[in-house]
Amino acid sequence: MGNLILTREDVKRVADMKETIDAVRNVYKLKSDGKAVIWPLVNYEFVDEHGAMDIRSGYIKGEQLHGLKMLNNFPGNREKGLPPFNGIMMVYDSNTGIPIGIMDASYVTCMRTGAAGALGVDLLARKDAKTLMILGAGKQAPFQIAATLILRPEIEKVYVVDPLSFEAAQQFVANIAEQLKTDFKFEEVNAEFVASDSIEEAVRNSDAIITITPSRKPLIMKEWLKPGAHLSCLGSDMETKQEIESAISGSARIFTDDKAQCMRVGEIEIPLQQGVIKESDIAGEIGDVIAGTIKGRESEDQITLFDATGLYILDLVTAKAVISKAKEANIGFEMEM
Amino acid sequence: MGNLILTREDVKRVADMKETIDAVRNVYKLKSDGKAVIWPLVNYEFVDEHGAMDIRSGYIKGEQLHGLKMLNNFPGNREKGLPPFNGIMMVYDSNTGIPIGIMDASYVTCMRTGAAGALGVDLLARKDAKTLMILGAGKQAPFQIAATLILRPEIEKVYVVDPLSFEAAQQFVANIAEQLKTDFKFEEVNAEFVASDSIEEAVRNSDAIITITPSRKPLIMKEWLKPGAHLSCLGSDMETKQEIESAISGSARIFTDDKAQCMRVGEIEIPLQQGVIKESDIAGEIGDVIAGTIKGRESEDQITLFDATGLYILDLVTAKAVISKAKEANIGFEMEM
Repeated sequence: MGNLILTREDVKRVADMKETIDAVRNVYKLKSDGKAVIWPLVNYEFVDEHGAMDIRSGYIKGEQLHGLKMLNNFPGNREKGLPPFNGIMMVYDSNTGIPIGIMDASYVTCMRTGAAGALGVDLLARKDAKTLMILGAGKQAPFQIAATLILRPEIEKVYVVDPLSFEAAQQFVANIAEQLKTDFKFEEVNAEFVASDSIEEAVRNSDAIITITPSRKPLIMKEWLKPGAHLSCLGSDMETKQEIESAISGSARIFTDDKAQCMRVGEIEIPLQQGVIKESDIAGEIGDVIAGTIKGRESEDQITLFDATGLYILDLVTAKAVISKAKEANIGFEMEM
Repeated sequence: MGNLILTREDVKRVADMKETIDAVRNVYKLKSDGKAVIWPLVNYEFVDEHGAMDIRSGYIKGEQLHGLKMLNNFPGNREKGLPPFNGIMMVYDSNTGIPIGIMDASYVTCMRTGAAGALGVDLLARKDAKTLMILGAGKQAPFQIAATLILRPEIEKVYVVDPLSFEAAQQFVANIAEQLKTDFKFEEVNAEFVASDSIEEAVRNSDAIITITPSRKPLIMKEWLKPGAHLSCLGSDMETKQEIESAISGSARIFTDDKAQCMRVGEIEIPLQQGVIKESDIAGEIGDVIAGTIKGRESEDQITLFDATGLYILDLVTAKAVISKAKEANIGFEMEM
């Protein structure tokens, strides 16, 4: 029994989006059952170095997994020719406290974030949803699309909008079908991908919307939404971030990944501060919908919102699946520490 | 530039006690200068599994090092034929946030704890101290002896007492000279080692005493102490632990490694609770003695006490030295995460 050490490339070789979706769905449900423990966040800002680090950790009972993820973000590294961001996670067997894996955290984070956004769409969007919009054509976007098309293969058209660069959206659209085949093992891609330079136009055409930008001002207005539209908002994960107009939260049926964390740093942080919504306007956590204890969408015209800020327990279950597959495939470097 | 992965054996091959002592002395001083930041402890008890984990982390300005150590302690593993304890640490360059090493934490912890206890002796014991007592003949004891004999080569006699087993002390004494040569590169060992089955007798003969047991009741009484004796107490690092009679704290000049932490979980926790001492009876931190801002021993007859609970910043500097030497010696497994 050894501790498996996996690089980003190792993780990418074995990670599977269908398995990740199943693992994330299961852990949201375990959280709703009180089986997941999020340990206190440790974070620090390196003032002179213009950097930041955080340590996220937690435990999933039943799955018997615990561990941590340490992230370092030093944007000034770009000028030095160094990567600005890195993350390493450690995964332990909670029956014995023995480490089972140490791995690059970045690919795992992208996978579980994709699964989270897509589960929000699948659980809350109208059953007849045919159009999807992705706001933010960055490195997370392919994961969101892959996971959503796995769960909702009926989606016919995907609008891709990048608030900073229409070119980025165009390039993204030119490559995504191929990427779904190579990186996510899609046998065929039926959806049509459309780059748009108008957020409004894309929103007006979309049944489901995933936002994954670092925006600090609302980019999507309430009056643009189709009746019954769903939004999975993943970009807001720090104080002062906001991607959608507060009035949307004010009229939507709201679910969170973790209520306390979303209230503090999620998409609903600012609407709460503004008094547009109050705590009792939060319908529940997404795990409650999965567990069947709280109803998701209540009507065809209702606007639904899934506010997801990211939970380390999602990384844990994703990493566990990665470790199993890597062991089977004899990938990685196994060592006794 | 890669991230160096080191097993316990790798660490043992390159760790050097003289270098560790210098690194620990320096970091105590940096702490006294306000350059060390201890981040909040994250800990958790696995009730059903009878296990515990903690995450210790911190940052040293100037040294530009930060990182964490995750420890898991599952005593029930012994019955399963598995190691009950493991620790892994991660070390980062604080100029870039890039990881420089991931390693087994157990040997590093033993090294820096040995250096800490010995620095207490060297800074606070009488200059003419000739006899040392080690209370607790466990795996930490050789590190305490090695470091103390490096700093105080004039010590002629070392009493070893184990409160649970005289046999353990006898076995320890039979092997220690050889171990100092093989594990700690001593060219010669001049001190005489004596196993004792009487704590009282050993205390009555000792100028300096290091306690490194998990005891929850006082083992050393005040009336046994020689005038001018010094005690470095390292065993008490959790609530309710206590190795020496509270009256000793009541009459000693007290230094801590970290004042707040020692008050909460160190040897002085219980004397403070009992009202035998109050916060203002703490003379300072050991780093203040190293920096020269607070006087250590004030007279030849004074009893001195160093209460050390362990600080992650000590592991960081010890690990940095280990990483440098391992790179030089081409030891370990370097990987891009």
